Amino acid sequence: MHTDVMGYDPLAERLTALRRELHRYPEPAWYEYRTTCRVIRELQQQGIPVLYGRALHCPKAMYGLPDDHGEALQRAREEGCDEKLLAQLTGGYTGCVAVIRGDQPGKTVAVRVDLDCNRLAESGDEAHRPVREGFASHHEGCMHGCGHDGHTAIGVCLAESLWARRGELRGQVKIIFQPAEEGAGGAASMTAAGVLDGVDIFLGMHIGLGLEPVGTIAASAYGFLASTKMDVTFHGRGAHAGLCPEEGRNALAAAATAVTNLLAISRSGQGASRVNVGSLVSVAGRNVIPSEARMGVETRGETETINAYMESSALRVCEAAAAMYGCTVEHRIMGRAGSADCSSALAKRVCEFLGRQPGVIEVVPAFHFRASEDVTTMMRRVQEQGGQATELMLGSAIAAPHHSERFDFDEAVMPLAVRTLTQLILTLVE
Amino acid sequence: MHTDVMGYDPLAERLTALRRELHRYPEPAWYEYRTTCRVIRELQQQGIPVLYGRALHCPKAMYGLPDDHGEALQRAREEGCDEKLLAQLTGGYTGCVAVIRGDQPGKTVAVRVDLDCNRLAESGDEAHRPVREGFASHHEGCMHGCGHDGHTAIGVCLAESLWARRGELRGQVKIIFQPAEEGAGGAASMTAAGVLDGVDIFLGMHIGLGLEPVGTIAASAYGFLASTKMDVTFHGRGAHAGLCPEEGRNALAAAATAVTNLLAISRSGQGASRVNVGSLVSVAGRNVIPSEARMGVETRGETETINAYMESSALRVCEAAAAMYGCTVEHRIMGRAGSADCSSALAKRVCEFLGRQPGVIEVVPAFHFRASEDVTTMMRRVQEQGGQATELMLGSAIAAPHHSERFDFDEAVMPLAVRTLTQLILTLVE
Amino acid sequence: MHTDVMGYDPLAERLTALRRELHRYPEPAWYEYRTTCRVIRELQQQGIPVLYGRALHCPKAMYGLPDDHGEALQRAREEGCDEKLLAQLTGGYTGCVAVIRGDQPGKTVAVRVDLDCNRLAESGDEAHRPVREGFASHHEGCMHGCGHDGHTAIGVCLAESLWARRGELRGQVKIIFQPAEEGAGGAASMTAAGVLDGVDIFLGMHIGLGLEPVGTIAASAYGFLASTKMDVTFHGRGAHAGLCPEEGRNALAAAATAVTNLLAISRSGQGASRVNVGSLVSVAGRNVIPSEARMGVETRGETETINAYMESSALRVCEAAAAMYGCTVEHRIMGRAGSADCSSALAKRVCEFLGRQPGVIEVVPAFHFRASEDVTTMMRRVQEQGGQATELMLGSAIAAPHHSERFDFDEAVMPLAVRTLTQLILTLVE
Amino acid sequence: MHTDVMGYDPLAERLTALRRELHRYPEPAWYEYRTTCRVIRELQQQGIPVLYGRALHCPKAMYGLPDDHGEALQRAREEGCDEKLLAQLTGGYTGCVAVIRGDQPGKTVAVRVDLDCNRLAESGDEAHRPVREGFASHHEGCMHGCGHDGHTAIGVCLAESLWARRGELRGQVKIIFQPAEEGAGGAASMTAAGVLDGVDIFLGMHIGLGLEPVGTIAASAYGFLASTKMDVTFHGRGAHAGLCPEEGRNALAAAATAVTNLLAISRSGQGASRVNVGSLVSVAGRNVIPSEARMGVETRGETETINAYMESSALRVCEAAAAMYGCTVEHRIMGRAGSADCSSALAKRVCEFLGRQPGVIEVVPAFHFRASEDVTTMMRRVQEQGGQATELMLGSAIAAPHHSERFDFDEAVMPLAVRTLTQLILTLVE
Repeated sequence: MHTDVMGYDPLAERLTALRRELHRYPEPAWYEYRTTCRVIRELQQQGIPVLYGRALHCPKAMYGLPDDHGEALQRAREEGCDEKLLAQLTGGYTGCVAVIRGDQPGKTVAVRVDLDCNRLAESGDEAHRPVREGFASHHEGCMHGCGHDGHTAIGVCLAESLWARRGELRGQVKIIFQPAEEGAGGAASMTAAGVLDGVDIFLGMHIGLGLEPVGTIAASAYGFLASTKMDVTFHGRGAHAGLCPEEGRNALAAAATAVTNLLAISRSGQGASRVNVGSLVSVAGRNVIPSEARMGVETRGETETINAYMESSALRVCEAAAAMYGCTVEHRIMGRAGSADCSSALAKRVCEFLGRQPGVIEVVPAFHFRASEDVTTMMRRVQEQGGQATELMLGSAIAAPHHSERFDFDEAVMPLAVRTLTQLILTLVE
Repeated sequence: MHTDVMGYDPLAERLTALRRELHRYPEPAWYEYRTTCRVIRELQQQGIPVLYGRALHCPKAMYGLPDDHGEALQRAREEGCDEKLLAQLTGGYTGCVAVIRGDQPGKTVAVRVDLDCNRLAESGDEAHRPVREGFASHHEGCMHGCGHDGHTAIGVCLAESLWARRGELRGQVKIIFQPAEEGAGGAASMTAAGVLDGVDIFLGMHIGLGLEPVGTIAASAYGFLASTKMDVTFHGRGAHAGLCPEEGRNALAAAATAVTNLLAISRSGQGASRVNVGSLVSVAGRNVIPSEARMGVETRGETETINAYMESSALRVCEAAAAMYGCTVEHRIMGRAGSADCSSALAKRVCEFLGRQPGVIEVVPAFHFRASEDVTTMMRRVQEQGGQATELMLGSAIAAPHHSERFDFDEAVMPLAVRTLTQLILTLVE
Repeated sequence: MHTDVMGYDPLAERLTALRRELHRYPEPAWYEYRTTCRVIRELQQQGIPVLYGRALHCPKAMYGLPDDHGEALQRAREEGCDEKLLAQLTGGYTGCVAVIRGDQPGKTVAVRVDLDCNRLAESGDEAHRPVREGFASHHEGCMHGCGHDGHTAIGVCLAESLWARRGELRGQVKIIFQPAEEGAGGAASMTAAGVLDGVDIFLGMHIGLGLEPVGTIAASAYGFLASTKMDVTFHGRGAHAGLCPEEGRNALAAAATAVTNLLAISRSGQGASRVNVGSLVSVAGRNVIPSEARMGVETRGETETINAYMESSALRVCEAAAAMYGCTVEHRIMGRAGSADCSSALAKRVCEFLGRQPGVIEVVPAFHFRASEDVTTMMRRVQEQGGQATELMLGSAIAAPHHSERFDFDEAVMPLAVRTLTQLILTLVE
Repeated sequence: MHTDVMGYDPLAERLTALRRELHRYPEPAWYEYRTTCRVIRELQQQGIPVLYGRALHCPKAMYGLPDDHGEALQRAREEGCDEKLLAQLTGGYTGCVAVIRGDQPGKTVAVRVDLDCNRLAESGDEAHRPVREGFASHHEGCMHGCGHDGHTAIGVCLAESLWARRGELRGQVKIIFQPAEEGAGGAASMTAAGVLDGVDIFLGMHIGLGLEPVGTIAASAYGFLASTKMDVTFHGRGAHAGLCPEEGRNALAAAATAVTNLLAISRSGQGASRVNVGSLVSVAGRNVIPSEARMGVETRGETETINAYMESSALRVCEAAAAMYGCTVEHRIMGRAGSADCSSALAKRVCEFLGRQPGVIEVVPAFHFRASEDVTTMMRRVQEQGGQATELMLGSAIAAPHHSERFDFDEAVMPLAVRTLTQLILTLVE
């Protein structure tokens, strides 16, 4: 029993408080300055060793890294982050790794959680719990709409829990707090920097995604969609829209026709495919033919072949849309995630373990993921080295779909995750 | 002869310096804080009476007034504007009126110049004279791409010139420095506030527009396009673009299909029509179905009937595009300009006068305007009161079309304009 | 007085009967077999010399000539046309020229009327007079929707009227019955074949077009739109739409995006422009990705420069649309019409003449045409030779716009046209 | 051994000859007059009882039945069909059922083959075997592009083979020759008419679909896509495209924007979805705004829920596209196919049987179908009655994808199918 006679569970309280604080201050990919500082401070207060800074990243693999960090840093500063710590993170070198060494030699287990939020405006509706209970986003246009706030809170408390039981632990555990999952570059950068080197057993995790209620846990996942993120910019020529519109090269018209025809790329008979234009920005006066338009685009595929088909089709559509309006176009790949398979032996072992755990009401051997996750990059790195990897799916009822403005989840998933993972890791390293 | 033995013309020097300074600090509609302060200071230094502030405007007719003025004011402050003066302009109450009373009673002549710039990024190419000669825009995304910098400089020097000769002047001359021409609301606001009341003779002016070289002047214009400016916002619903795209209501897809189909609104057999989407902004993460998209739209027509056809068609297209993607849409009219005709008797008189002026090499009786100008609002108000109005077109070779990123004009038009208008006004009030 | 005591006017009766018969059997461009036979028979019955057959055409200039004539000929045969006569017309060598030589030497006057109908399904509504009074089209998908039935009837009766008064006539009159006006190739073919050679005075004519009521006549027209007609074919690759849609190259998708973006070609600030896709045919099974799509396209411009801009933009859009869907595209120019100006001296003379004619209630010196007419090809040929040309506009109330399914006109225009033109020609050759 | 010493296999010869003859005379859905006559004649020549005519159909369920049968019947007549037989089929009452009763009582087994072709123009390339070997389609715009010619030939020879061995047969076998599979109405009509009543074991079959080479057979299939077929017609208003385009209501523009936006309907995260516009026909003159456009549309979904989402989205897009251009739209459902599951016990039994058959080189337990088939309607009917059903997939290398203009298959699949199915049926009824 984790609760006292009054039904009070201190771990649950702590997780909820931490998650809600993180929910209030969401930070998008590569801007997780406050979040990283917060995690480091929590861990260091317990005496847990933490790695952070440039050594955790490989600049060439920091896909989607924005150019300007001034504003994000300034905000983190105003929100109370330590100036010295920030200096080491500046430039997008966010995220950290907690390292808990057991008293006895043994295997290396890595657990990965992600830190970043979505570029999404949170609902202001009273019916939305974060609004009603006062923990809605304070950062305009940013929202934890995918549960990474919960993942981070779980990561912190899992580190603390393992630290407390390090006497029982063989080998070592790395809790990897990864930035930039939504931008698809964080895992590539950390992996290229060697963060996964030497890992024997890798555990990813995700809450929700349709699995519910709390107590339902999947031991592995399949159907990760391979994905490509890109920025596309159309260049045209401005002109007076009344006097001589025919002199213009309408970059917005090119982009608009690209949007519609990107969505119209033929589905593949080989499996699931996706394409999305998440943003389009073209700004000129109402009486000026717009000379530039920028789009954020993403393609996905059930296999890397399907994603390659979607990516090349998307580029063809953009080229043709530009040509249609006498414009030019350039694109920049901002991230790529592959597909991956969970290690079946590990999944089986986890499955059997879960079947015996208190609080676990149903164990799903393999969950159909249906989305992209750059955790696949880490999983494949571990497997290439001869290690084993799986992605745990933690059931939790959600208030609205992931990445939607009313997303919220059942916080009871968090203490169950911390307790189950602690026990699982102690078991796996035996 | 205006030049000394060395070919030096002090008026031309002064106009060029002033115009280039204004070109460096362009301000868009309703944000002309620095420009207004600069004009007021110049005029007051000469002792010329100037009216400014809330009395010149009618809040209900300030179409397209932006909500937020903080940043624009802050910039003006940083650029050295007087705090007290700014306080009186705050909220978009920009523009001013110089009043030059002659020593003898007589008619009231009004001359109108416009102050605002375009929301357009200026070319950074060395071949562009403002870059080469160091007077390109310091304000990102803003550019004097229609010659209003020249108009303002002409207005200031014309006021000074008439002030110097006020002993010869009958009646009074008002030089109206109007804000927000590009946004179509400045003329409506000043007219509704009574700025044109009591005006007997009204002179508008525009440089360039295809009339060239300097020395060619049109005594009147026809073919002003009626125009409607509107903001259109699509509201949808966000969703995870990989996991459950079908849960979204794609506001960007709706906006994109609206853009293409707006441009495809059928031409009218009754005369010229125009439609432009000057801006589209929709921002979500690459993996989020965008839930909102905002567009700046403008329609025009050779007659008000044609513009009404374009406006209603545009609204129908937007409604249908929203419905197509399960979204909703709302629009807000941000400005309207009508058509108008120059007073033929005045045009004829001006035509004859111009034929006798030094420096004028060709007089065009009536120029085909082919664009919109809210000067029509002022012209119609003067004509309703029994006054006469015309729009002078001042020929000037241009480097690139109006509203394009390389627009520039032959500055020799400015001293010719000041000299010719001074003489014209003194003649008209005789 | 043309009517007898009972109000009966035999010329009006004859014109109405003839026009209504022609209305019943409309034939589109290059298929005017029955119409031509009918005209030849009428003229020959009066003894009027008629030229017809291959000599009137230049095969290289028969733009838009269809490949297959079998069905059209068969229909003409079934409708009673003389086999021998048909043999001479076979292959699209339709149209004819009546030649009326006066008893005295003099100038050559040419009058041109057009024979072809529109590919347009006529309304079946009882409120539509041709339905109510039993002369609606018997040819499915074909309709005299532009008044050429009236033109043809006027041409026949004008020939008869001049023939009857040939004793008073100096020189000669050619009444040119031209095929394929709507397809834009008939005038080019006849002109290239020399039909206009030696013509001193050329009179085109058109009824309706917004000029009304009967009795209003314009002595000339301006604002003919230059125009290009083209056939565009997209080639893709079929595939099973369920099993492997990504294997297809969707020619219909390419054509559809071309349609929308063709309509979206920017208007020109230089003057009126037009673009239309009159037909799109792509036929595959519902479960097959369509591998071919054919479109009939037309562009127009107030000047030939504007039309050239529209034509090249249209080709660029089609190329890009094909590339967007991995298809190829080919186009074939099916006709071109230029712009032209009426001869001012002739127009003035006609204007003065009309002012004195009975039944003419208003004379308009110059009518704004706002459409395309390949009569311009003939006009320019005559002017090149030193002759004079004008296009007469014959006012007539219309029931619905030209080229719409309920088009009909006030038949009273026909006898007025025959009488006025007879007199005009006799006067012009004096 | 089925071949003699010279390698000659008479069954293979007969199948190839029959299949190639059918390939030469392909007939689309509901027009299978010649094909049905041919099948009936073959069967009756052997003395096999055959049912045909109105009793096999339910008029209300004949989805997609065309209105006009005159031309199809005339062609069948010209190709030598018996007039009396045709009279019984007239109106689309095509297809037939061979009934082979065994000498001993027992179960009823049904085998279904489909007769219709695709509306697809066959390649004329010499590299395409049907061209090279002289059996390409004689029917313009029609092609057996899905192997139904092979299915029909197999059905005929299977009937003959079972008839020859009816002494060994318990119960009875019905070979159902179904029309209109591609149009999705044939199975519904025959099922509603009771053709499947009393069937204990149902066997569907399909060749190719990516399964290869000959000798590979799947005992069952899954992943049938639910599907809806519909005809959509846009109604607008014609107008002269030069003179007054704004008077038109452009039905083709509405249809074109519908096409693009139909293809852009969001993919579903729940599973595979499809949408196709197989045809678009809009015909007016190049200078006429088209007043009507007709489209053939199909949606599919991995589940009936997904297809319902696609169907309702498609209707919404069409409604909105019509509204966008001031048009109206109507739609007519032309067919629906559901999803279905093969009976696992039967599939298992078939699987085991196949493993022992000569010529079978690999047995696939369950094949991923990835397309739609109205065989699902029959399967569900049999299962509702307590019977068992499965769909056999017969491996065969194909020259190009199904429904493409170069489709062809390895004919060696046919004798293997006849021999294996004969044996399977004799075994199943034991």
